[in-house]
Amino acid sequence: MSPDPSRDPTVAEERPTFVTHLECSMTGRAYEADQVHGLSEAGKPLLVRYDLEALAKAVNKAALAERPGGFWRFREFLPVRKAENVVSLGEVTTPIVRLPRLEAANGGGGALFVKDEGRLPTGSFKARGLALAVAMARELGLEHLAMPTAGNAGAAMAAYAKRAGLRSTIFCPDDAPAVAVSEMAVQGAAVYQVNGLINDCGKLVGEGKAATGWFDLSTLKEPYRIEGKKTMGLELAEQFGWELPDVIFYPTGGGTGLIGMWKAFAELEAIGWIGSKRPRMVAVQSTGCAPIVKAFEEGEEHAPLWPDAHTIAAGIRVPIAVGDFLILRAVRESGGFAIAVTDEAILAGVDEVAKTEGLLLCPEGAATYAAYKQALAAGRVGPQDRCVLYNCATGLKYPLPEVTSRLDRHKPIDYAAL
Amino acid sequence: MSPDPSRDPTVAEERPTFVTHLECSMTGRAYEADQVHGLSEAGKPLLVRYDLEALAKAVNKAALAERPGGFWRFREFLPVRKAENVVSLGEVTTPIVRLPRLEAANGGGGALFVKDEGRLPTGSFKARGLALAVAMARELGLEHLAMPTAGNAGAAMAAYAKRAGLRSTIFCPDDAPAVAVSEMAVQGAAVYQVNGLINDCGKLVGEGKAATGWFDLSTLKEPYRIEGKKTMGLELAEQFGWELPDVIFYPTGGGTGLIGMWKAFAELEAIGWIGSKRPRMVAVQSTGCAPIVKAFEEGEEHAPLWPDAHTIAAGIRVPIAVGDFLILRAVRESGGFAIAVTDEAILAGVDEVAKTEGLLLCPEGAATYAAYKQALAAGRVGPQDRCVLYNCATGLKYPLPEVTSRLDRHKPIDYAAL
Repeated sequence: MSPDPSRDPTVAEERPTFVTHLECSMTGRAYEADQVHGLSEAGKPLLVRYDLEALAKAVNKAALAERPGGFWRFREFLPVRKAENVVSLGEVTTPIVRLPRLEAANGGGGALFVKDEGRLPTGSFKARGLALAVAMARELGLEHLAMPTAGNAGAAMAAYAKRAGLRSTIFCPDDAPAVAVSEMAVQGAAVYQVNGLINDCGKLVGEGKAATGWFDLSTLKEPYRIEGKKTMGLELAEQFGWELPDVIFYPTGGGTGLIGMWKAFAELEAIGWIGSKRPRMVAVQSTGCAPIVKAFEEGEEHAPLWPDAHTIAAGIRVPIAVGDFLILRAVRESGGFAIAVTDEAILAGVDEVAKTEGLLLCPEGAATYAAYKQALAAGRVGPQDRCVLYNCATGLKYPLPEVTSRLDRHKPIDYAAL
Repeated sequence: MSPDPSRDPTVAEERPTFVTHLECSMTGRAYEADQVHGLSEAGKPLLVRYDLEALAKAVNKAALAERPGGFWRFREFLPVRKAENVVSLGEVTTPIVRLPRLEAANGGGGALFVKDEGRLPTGSFKARGLALAVAMARELGLEHLAMPTAGNAGAAMAAYAKRAGLRSTIFCPDDAPAVAVSEMAVQGAAVYQVNGLINDCGKLVGEGKAATGWFDLSTLKEPYRIEGKKTMGLELAEQFGWELPDVIFYPTGGGTGLIGMWKAFAELEAIGWIGSKRPRMVAVQSTGCAPIVKAFEEGEEHAPLWPDAHTIAAGIRVPIAVGDFLILRAVRESGGFAIAVTDEAILAGVDEVAKTEGLLLCPEGAATYAAYKQALAAGRVGPQDRCVLYNCATGLKYPLPEVTSRLDRHKPIDYAAL
């Protein structure tokens, strides 16, 4: 504690960095570091590789414990070379909230935790990935960033790009929530609402590249958002005293966070900070959009496009994921599984957690609670397991009008009945 | 760092506590600790007093630095006796974000910081006061809490009461924002929307006491919300390395936070953790509701009711404050002042900070930035001053529909013009 606030992380001291190269996640082919990269030649995501031996000599757990909270504490594990390119909006280490009443209600014995990512700048875990992507864009001399998005990723890109002094342009589907759209616009992005779906928006970003020179920050189409999401795994390990929990329930759209955490655990084991024990990784999707669940159950390595995707949990309404094989690989290697929940179970989850523990989750976060209950009932997790649910955004972005419509208005008050 | 998340603060170890008694803030008359109290017999707020000598022996800065973030780290400065009554939803130390571009734009030389309180549970600084009030309610055996509120205080009471296993009942004016109302309701409060203003709601809470037995948690009508808000001052001092900034701009409705910070600084000086240097305290209000500003300028000790109060910044739309004399006393003792800004300046402030620094403030937070600019132009603060602006809630609770209405929809895209 006691960071000097005049020493903003954006002007923090230099730290050694250890990127050696990038690597195609499918073919293993190496790519040069410190160059602008999109997908690999095979059309697959690139993974950043580090000199882990040197990294392990440059930092240790005790040194880390002295640093202020927030994901920039893990500088040695991240690709940004120069401190001047770090971009910060006041990150915090996101809290872990235990749910004792729900543990008891569900049979008890183990422990149930929520990691509340809604406390990050712009109110969602997208801050992690976009802070890194924007910092690397600045480091590599890019000036204009673009993205198709329905929500939180766009808000995070807009805010961090503005903070870094870069331009950003965003294409949203017409039905994107008004709160998200206004958040992006007020933070200085140029926002276009498109008469179409998210893939139409993606097409516009692609088509505009040549004419505008903007760089596409879409999920996994550049190598650094995954490094930002990796910090979820690093942070979790540190918060659990370098003993990982038994099961992680992760709301899975593009899956960057699940892939990133799996990468974090591998890097931590390689430097000897954790043992070989891994959490079982559970990919949570909606029954209205469950490509990963279907591929998992059918033993496939890839997950084809899910037609007519629909769910109220917009963050996991992702019909096709460029990192599908990476998600499936991590889930299988971990001994985990993929599971789908209904919109009804999601809404019931929001209600149950809020009304029992006073904690308002976003729909995607509530999906992980619904999945936990379903998995517990089916014996896929045990009552003794220590489980972590990822609440990926603040519940405040979702006004829940169906709740207010249920309230009594202007009835005479009968105090005796209260 | 590295809190063991299974050691939730709600079940954290016992710590010594030091409350000696309570004291009427007007007459100085002493009241017994560990009893249920509302206002003093003089109808004024009660202040909690501590054995500061003993406190200073029980904790030091180095021990504090070892503890996890969040306001419960200051247990020795707080009134809760038993650890089992601590109630937590994952508090964090709220970040301090520097605004370098706005420093430059405004003439530079000093330093301008935002303390971003929107990262607390339920998205506002009300979490501090209500967590303490609810914990003390539990400690004193109260079972049912009630409050008139238009927003964030109710959300914080609902969440912490639910977490503590207590009932809560809330009366809102009919025009309270839907997001706030649904947040309170989904977190388990009984919510009534009243065909009237906030004072009508307050009347209902008062009238219902005898029939229901609920306890009134209204601002400053019980002694512990101020102790929670006090942690803003403790936290700020620690974050600034126990050297306070020159000026604090604080959005002032009921003023609990300003009074609480002033109390914190006095306690810190009494135990020798800071010197006698104090920030100038600036009470920021709206031109549509400026009772404290008027009283300050007229040299009055009390601030009569402001008629026809109106401003878009609902958190500072407080026409009469029970702690008026305490606010005015702190402002004057500090060499500070009270200042009012227009709604236009508030909206321009939201826009300017978001579009320049990527940081989305709430309207009350933006009011402090507007006040800073106004004070700087008038020479009431200097360009060399280190100033802190309090952003009391996440900007995400305010959908800003006027922003979205400005967006272009479905126009053909001219990439050459982007």
